[in-house]
Amino acid sequence: MIVSDPFLYENGTAESIGKSLKGKDVAYFSEIEPNPSCESVDKAAEAARTIKADCVIGLGGGSALDVSKMVSCLVTNVGSIYDYYAGGTKQLQPRTTELICIPTTAGTGSEVTNVGVFTNKKAGIKIPFVTNEFWPDYAILDPELTFTLPPAVTASTGMDAFCHAIEAYWNKDSLPICDMLSLGAMKMILENIKQAYEHPQDMEARGAIITASLIAGISFSQTRTTGIHALSFPITTEFGASHGVACAITLSAFIKISGEKEKEKMLVLANYLGYASINALSEAIEKLMISMNMPVRLSQIGIRESDLEHITQVGLKAAIIQLTPAIMNEETVYALLKSILE
Amino acid sequence: MIVSDPFLYENGTAESIGKSLKGKDVAYFSEIEPNPSCESVDKAAEAARTIKADCVIGLGGGSALDVSKMVSCLVTNVGSIYDYYAGGTKQLQPRTTELICIPTTAGTGSEVTNVGVFTNKKAGIKIPFVTNEFWPDYAILDPELTFTLPPAVTASTGMDAFCHAIEAYWNKDSLPICDMLSLGAMKMILENIKQAYEHPQDMEARGAIITASLIAGISFSQTRTTGIHALSFPITTEFGASHGVACAITLSAFIKISGEKEKEKMLVLANYLGYASINALSEAIEKLMISMNMPVRLSQIGIRESDLEHITQVGLKAAIIQLTPAIMNEETVYALLKSILE
Repeated sequence: MIVSDPFLYENGTAESIGKSLKGKDVAYFSEIEPNPSCESVDKAAEAARTIKADCVIGLGGGSALDVSKMVSCLVTNVGSIYDYYAGGTKQLQPRTTELICIPTTAGTGSEVTNVGVFTNKKAGIKIPFVTNEFWPDYAILDPELTFTLPPAVTASTGMDAFCHAIEAYWNKDSLPICDMLSLGAMKMILENIKQAYEHPQDMEARGAIITASLIAGISFSQTRTTGIHALSFPITTEFGASHGVACAITLSAFIKISGEKEKEKMLVLANYLGYASINALSEAIEKLMISMNMPVRLSQIGIRESDLEHITQVGLKAAIIQLTPAIMNEETVYALLKSILE
Repeated sequence: MIVSDPFLYENGTAESIGKSLKGKDVAYFSEIEPNPSCESVDKAAEAARTIKADCVIGLGGGSALDVSKMVSCLVTNVGSIYDYYAGGTKQLQPRTTELICIPTTAGTGSEVTNVGVFTNKKAGIKIPFVTNEFWPDYAILDPELTFTLPPAVTASTGMDAFCHAIEAYWNKDSLPICDMLSLGAMKMILENIKQAYEHPQDMEARGAIITASLIAGISFSQTRTTGIHALSFPITTEFGASHGVACAITLSAFIKISGEKEKEKMLVLANYLGYASINALSEAIEKLMISMNMPVRLSQIGIRESDLEHITQVGLKAAIIQLTPAIMNEETVYALLKSILE
């Protein structure tokens, strides 16, 4: 069963992959919305169980890949995603259905991680589900699949990948091997994202970004993410920003405060990327985002000062926020958000 | 069964690991020589079969780890290593015996590769055996196990790891992800090897080198090595140099010629490591080796001009030599060797 975004079914991409699987019975499920709900997961799982799918192929952005991960597990695990996640107490038994992930955006890295992010409509929040059963068996990268991404999506997903890399790098649980992967991924993204944004069919730039996204995915799948992702969850769920925008919008501010406990390491990063100081890197990132028409102030996406306390509260509930190399409490998080309000 | 170097059995290290495996019957095999022969492998395999080993733990330098890999396969694969390697036509069936590798030198990276190098006494040559069955199930790094390495071994094994990283980096089959790992591993080695050489019990330096060795191992296990390793085989087998010395002795010369097809990429490397040019990097490596009392000229290890043609011939037989980013033929290889004779 090929699980894809509706667009990729309608434009024939899913079917062209299905037809290439000679001698296989292929079914399609394409009712995936952005920030997919648990209800969509259950619906896809029911379809996969009905046909006893022996392989689930996720095709699309993070949403389709994340759904494909959970669906591949639910083929042989009874019940609903709610039984295993968001308060559910059942343990997933080992996945026996093969899982192949083919990203069509270059940003989530979901094709190489053990993470799926789902929106729990009952509780009204978006939270990650982490399990070893989610590591895909295969990831297939084809830069051409990203040629048709609108420039705004190229920008936001590419900056999401950059956030994965930098959050793994400054992470309190960082590892030397992940530092190396993160440094390289960040460099590849900075050197190519503007080109991919302006020239959507540039094979080299597209190839570099999708490769960097995968590499950043390997990196943060070991360390997890930090404050950027923690704050992105309420910004996406409650203010409708895309995941990449919701992450990137706090990136420059987090770069500035990341020097608190990791000054030397952050300076190595800034120098490696060609900047003389941590602040210079922060400013360059903001400038790059502006040049790609990305919002850099919370007010640009409809957030008001009166919302900041709530975003702070929800963000602090995500355990990963404490992997940020800075003190993260009601006061400091509020101050960070306030600094990028207007 | 714990397969170890004799020294590690005699000094009690193997037994202390064996005793920590509470409730397990542990056997020991420690008759491993440097550049292990196929005969030693068969002897160890016979011992493992007799006790029906369900897990083989390799403990030691590259020799012990490489032997442990083949032994773990031969527990359930009938016959001799010669049946599968060096002209043998049998195919290894999937390994069912668990394989754990614990390196006590920081250089081979064997704990994370699918390669074993054995000396075929019948043919008088040392050649690598590559198979997916050799990927260990677990690698365990303990910097303290390297505290007792003599300075000369610290130097030669550390430079071997450096060669793995640089050969993956300039490799014709290089990959972005391996480039990142290699860059980081080379930096860690250059920043720490002298400290580990001079202060054998420096935990931080030892930890950095053994970690870098593992990371370089992951990198070159994807790309394979190049001319340095190809030429090291005859230099070791026929002139008795240790593997690390036999590799490092051609390193500076290979750095100089690697700019032939990879000038830009090699300059990125030189700059990243703090040098203004490829030649400056080459010279710095030679200076570093001299400061650690390593030979940098072939005549220092008893090789005469009349030997160069033979080394050239044998080196050119190794297919990996053609992964070097330079023309490798009788003329160019001879010239390279000649340039570092005296």
